Amino acid sequence: MSSSTASDLPRALKIGIIGFGPFGQFLAETMLRQGHSITATSRSDYSRQCAHLGISFFRDMDGFLKSGNEVILLCTSILSLSEVIQSMKFECLKQPTLFVDVLSVKEYPKHVLMQALPPESDLLCTHPMFGPESGKNGWRGLRFMYEKIRIRDEVICSSFLYIFESEGCKMLEMTCEEHDELAARSQFLTHMVGRVLTEMQIEQTPIDTKGFQKLVEVKDSTAKDSFDLFSGLFVHNRFAKQQLKNFETAFDKVKQELQQKTNETEPQQMTRSLSKF
Amino acid sequence: MSSSTASDLPRALKIGIIGFGPFGQFLAETMLRQGHSITATSRSDYSRQCAHLGISFFRDMDGFLKSGNEVILLCTSILSLSEVIQSMKFECLKQPTLFVDVLSVKEYPKHVLMQALPPESDLLCTHPMFGPESGKNGWRGLRFMYEKIRIRDEVICSSFLYIFESEGCKMLEMTCEEHDELAARSQFLTHMVGRVLTEMQIEQTPIDTKGFQKLVEVKDSTAKDSFDLFSGLFVHNRFAKQQLKNFETAFDKVKQELQQKTNETEPQQMTRSLSKF
Ligand SMILES: NC(=O)c1ccc[n+]([C@@H]2O[C@H](COP(=O)([O-])OP(=O)(O)OC[C@H]3O[C@@H](n4cnc5c(N)ncnc54)[C@H](OP(=O)(O)O)[C@@H]3O)[C@@H](O)[C@H]2O)c1
Ligand SMILES: NC(=O)c1ccc[n+]([C@@H]2O[C@H](COP(=O)([O-])OP(=O)(O)OC[C@H]3O[C@@H](n4cnc5c(N)ncnc54)[C@H](OP(=O)(O)O)[C@@H]3O)[C@@H](O)[C@H]2O)c1
Repeated sequence: MSSSTASDLPRALKIGIIGFGPFGQFLAETMLRQGHSITATSRSDYSRQCAHLGISFFRDMDGFLKSGNEVILLCTSILSLSEVIQSMKFECLKQPTLFVDVLSVKEYPKHVLMQALPPESDLLCTHPMFGPESGKNGWRGLRFMYEKIRIRDEVICSSFLYIFESEGCKMLEMTCEEHDELAARSQFLTHMVGRVLTEMQIEQTPIDTKGFQKLVEVKDSTAKDSFDLFSGLFVHNRFAKQQLKNFETAFDKVKQELQQKTNETEPQQMTRSLSKF
Repeated sequence: MSSSTASDLPRALKIGIIGFGPFGQFLAETMLRQGHSITATSRSDYSRQCAHLGISFFRDMDGFLKSGNEVILLCTSILSLSEVIQSMKFECLKQPTLFVDVLSVKEYPKHVLMQALPPESDLLCTHPMFGPESGKNGWRGLRFMYEKIRIRDEVICSSFLYIFESEGCKMLEMTCEEHDELAARSQFLTHMVGRVLTEMQIEQTPIDTKGFQKLVEVKDSTAKDSFDLFSGLFVHNRFAKQQLKNFETAFDKVKQELQQKTNETEPQQMTRSLSKF
């Protein structure tokens, strides 16, 4: 649009973060560096860390909601979203507010928030496709998915998106449904494989191949995320169950092929090998 | 040893390759560049490729064995080793020869070769832990495992090992048994996961995380190896079956944990979710 004025340009925002866990803290760091002013609240007490960072921390939700944020950023675990939303007295809000969530599943928060938020609030659903580990050397080229569910204040919304744009993220606008379908096939599958490898306690060996080193990396990085995050990817993404099934079917197929080769190669050992499964 | 003479230094070798498939060709390339003289034989006819490369190709095994190689390098598939060995008339050999195998399992060829080779032959069992894909940009830092099973001609043996040393490989001397135990936990597991992902036909998505990109790489690289190679890793490594079992147990555990979280979170949907497994 050629009619843009100075006030349309991305500007510093008053952002309130709910859920000051690993990912909330990770996002806060970049937002502070960019000059936004941050408040936070969380189930646990982060007053000391926050004082250190220059963030006002509210122990109670009501005080947080009354503190006049333009953006409220939901960084709670997927599993606790609905409980957290239920604890919020929206009448404490002093102004129409942009709600943004960063949950790693998207249809579920969209649905919960559309039902719970006051009608004058805007809603942006997002998923930064990176975390403290993969984004520790900057966000350039990393993907940021979003859907504008209900946006009236375009300036606030685009100022918020600019936080990620300006760091070099690859911005991907898509529906929450599209996201969940793709994320089940990619991110959930990765976490699932990572959890299985963690359960197996795989470790580097002196004769690692490059491929195995990649599996160890996948294990290490998924093990750093909480089990709540992993199970949230499953419980609240309706496409994940099918992926779990597909994995199981594929594994059974591979197992069968190996068993068949064993039988072809060592017919005399057939009974012994079969009894091992 | 301070008493080494010029003749102890690594020198150019006459190397005969049996099995001129992807891996035999891959090794031949570097050996030629280093100045060794190469002959080859294989089930299929590679006369044209070999003529092109300056390699004498023998269609018949007897001719190959009579051609006076100092080293015979076995690059056949794991599954065909015993058949290939049975087709060899060792009385055709003109001189004591160093046999070297590069199979990705090690106890099995050690056993087969110790039984079949004439007693005057030396035997070196090796596993270069890389292939045409992972070694395409040079071998520096890549691992090379070996066990000297029966070596009398140290000069020929060390000249052969020097092929890999001089390319910068990390040389690892260990027993075939140690190798197989470690390789089941690393390489077999990697191929198995890669085959399952291939079976699922996973593909890049627009919202890939770094972790998922690694899984796609593992899939792509294992899919490039033959199914014979993969099944050989299983059939002829006695430690592989346990790894398959461990993987299955770990997968079941993760599946159970997810199911439990689903039941905790959505008790009303319990019956529906359970029926999906
Ligand atoms: N980590 C990543 O790489 C990443 C990337 C993209 C998106 N995300 C999303 O970001 C969100 C936060 O992720 P995370 O990595 O920080 O770990 P997480 O385990 O998914 O969530 C931790 C956060 O949830 C809060 N929480 C957990 N249970 C709660 C409950 N019963 N009541 C109230 N609050 C509760 C924690 O509060 P306290 O700390 O106060 O206990 C903490 O702030 C998740 O929705 C996740 O899907 C994460
Ligand atoms: N590829 C790798 O990355 C890699 C790395 C380290 C070690 N290795 C080992 O190197 C060896 C060769 O591997 P590869 O990647 O080339 O593929 P492969 O499928 O394991 O083996 C192919 C070779 O086996 C021969 N062969 C297969 N069946 C045969 C039969 N019934 N009779 C006679 N010869 C038969 C083929 O001969 P024709 O071509 O003449 O049909 C070809 O030379 C294997 O033992 C493998 O474990 C491979």
